[in-house]
Amino acid sequence: MAYGPGAFFVRAWPSSQYNTNLFLFTHGVAMSSQIRVGIVGYGNLGRGVLAAIKQNSDMRLVAVFTRRDPATVTVDDPEVPVHALDRIEGFVGAIDVLILCGGSKNDLPEQGPALGRRFCTVDSFDTHARIPDYFEAVDAQARAGGKIALISVGWDPGLFSLNRLFGEVVLPEGATYTFWGKGLSQGHSDAVRRIPGVKAAVQYTIPSDDAVDRVRRGDLPELSTRERHTRECYVVLADGADAATVQQAIVTMPDYFADYDTTVHLIDEDTLKRDHAAMPHGGFVIRSGKTGTGTTQVVEYSLTLDSNPEFTSSVQQLRKELL
Amino acid sequence: MAYGPGAFFVRAWPSSQYNTNLFLFTHGVAMSSQIRVGIVGYGNLGRGVLAAIKQNSDMRLVAVFTRRDPATVTVDDPEVPVHALDRIEGFVGAIDVLILCGGSKNDLPEQGPALGRRFCTVDSFDTHARIPDYFEAVDAQARAGGKIALISVGWDPGLFSLNRLFGEVVLPEGATYTFWGKGLSQGHSDAVRRIPGVKAAVQYTIPSDDAVDRVRRGDLPELSTRERHTRECYVVLADGADAATVQQAIVTMPDYFADYDTTVHLIDEDTLKRDHAAMPHGGFVIRSGKTGTGTTQVVEYSLTLDSNPEFTSSVQQLRKELL
Repeated sequence: MAYGPGAFFVRAWPSSQYNTNLFLFTHGVAMSSQIRVGIVGYGNLGRGVLAAIKQNSDMRLVAVFTRRDPATVTVDDPEVPVHALDRIEGFVGAIDVLILCGGSKNDLPEQGPALGRRFCTVDSFDTHARIPDYFEAVDAQARAGGKIALISVGWDPGLFSLNRLFGEVVLPEGATYTFWGKGLSQGHSDAVRRIPGVKAAVQYTIPSDDAVDRVRRGDLPELSTRERHTRECYVVLADGADAATVQQAIVTMPDYFADYDTTVHLIDEDTLKRDHAAMPHGGFVIRSGKTGTGTTQVVEYSLTLDSNPEFTSSVQQLRKELL
Repeated sequence: MAYGPGAFFVRAWPSSQYNTNLFLFTHGVAMSSQIRVGIVGYGNLGRGVLAAIKQNSDMRLVAVFTRRDPATVTVDDPEVPVHALDRIEGFVGAIDVLILCGGSKNDLPEQGPALGRRFCTVDSFDTHARIPDYFEAVDAQARAGGKIALISVGWDPGLFSLNRLFGEVVLPEGATYTFWGKGLSQGHSDAVRRIPGVKAAVQYTIPSDDAVDRVRRGDLPELSTRERHTRECYVVLADGADAATVQQAIVTMPDYFADYDTTVHLIDEDTLKRDHAAMPHGGFVIRSGKTGTGTTQVVEYSLTLDSNPEFTSSVQQLRKELL
């Protein structure tokens, strides 16, 4: 079987659901002595990619591209030119790989297919439910343009997906568990901030020690949402807000908090800035299975990350070893 | 770039040392509705492969091949035919993949190249230092025969090698640590059994909690051999043997024990049979690295195995998802 150019992603689901393949691509990127990289979008992820490229001597950053006015974007390395995204067409042939650092909600659904037709791309599209649609859209353009696109490269989806697949392949009889945290969840923090009376807030997702212990022992437990994780919020109230009302609004919020045991800590703004500015995250994928006549075998993959965006952008680096 | 048939293995070393590629192979095995498998060698590993095939509905065991007199080999499933290895030539075309379950010392160096010319093969050759030579030998025959050979498939080398590679690719600035155990080491158990005065013995390799904790914290410690693991021996003395002499011979044995803190427990034969018949093993690969300006990131892959051979043979199963 031969693979031509197109889009590839790391499968995060059981085999029956989507007809796709685990694929570490082995061809398709024009290689010079260094891989010439372009960054599209300069937020937390773009900043992480710039730092990661400095750690890889086989890469060279050509430019940062932004939808904003380039004059308003200051990158951490003053030597790196910043260009308007609508001028990127002029860099065809001067860039081997574009790393797309925009958001999964609004940026990538448009940029992934559009840029995938003219450039080899890597992104970390992470809206799990929409990956098949995103794959189709990027794949069509990459095939038409004769380019390679690697989508959903990060840790979840990404390294966690690989480990779910490996676990299910090696231990077909068993169960796969994913725990996230302890870590700062951007989506849940945003949800708390939207509540009237909240001036600022962060939310941490915390795996339940008891649930993790049972899974590690090979008990193969069935765990409810509430049993898997707890949630912890650090909230700065707006002037005049009622603490009890805000607390109640948080813990009863459907989808985000109602199914969890949630603790709300009220703090002042200085404490929030001092103690909760970092973006730690992590988690683990555990495959617990049986071989032979009921022998327990447990495989665990875990990440402890002091910076979520810096790690995700490090995964996005395509080093020559994988090309 | 296109890959023809040949031998592939999972790289366990930094990139500069050997010019080989991480390769999950995507072609080359003739597919029927089920993968038709042959087992070569029926020890602990062959027994594990037979059990693992039963867990994979996309596989069918055709036969077990043995160097012994087939009449003397009883396999766990009486429906499975046992043939003399020297009759295997007659099964060309009737078997898609041979899983080689012989030992790395004497069996595989001969069987891997010989069988790799006529069949697609999978083995778990595990003498790390000799893998490059073994690769060359198998590769030459597999290429000549137009077959695929997948060598050194297990957990170390194997899944651990993959995780070392992934860790080094994602976090180029950092250190990789491997801890083995708690588990029964066949090689060290054999070494103890060879000491005069020892009737029977098993040896467990135990990772040092303190060393593991320091690595998990991201301290990037430099650890001596003695600091990484301890060793524990359970020994049955032969009649009339002197306990102190045996103990001294164990703890001072070069290469095997002299560089470790070793504890020797003297037990009776019934206790050995009752408490030490299982073959648990496991261990972990930890990649600890820095991103950005000194941010700590830790990736850990760990295995807790109640049966080492049953797990290794499960890794050897080539499921359709990976073909």
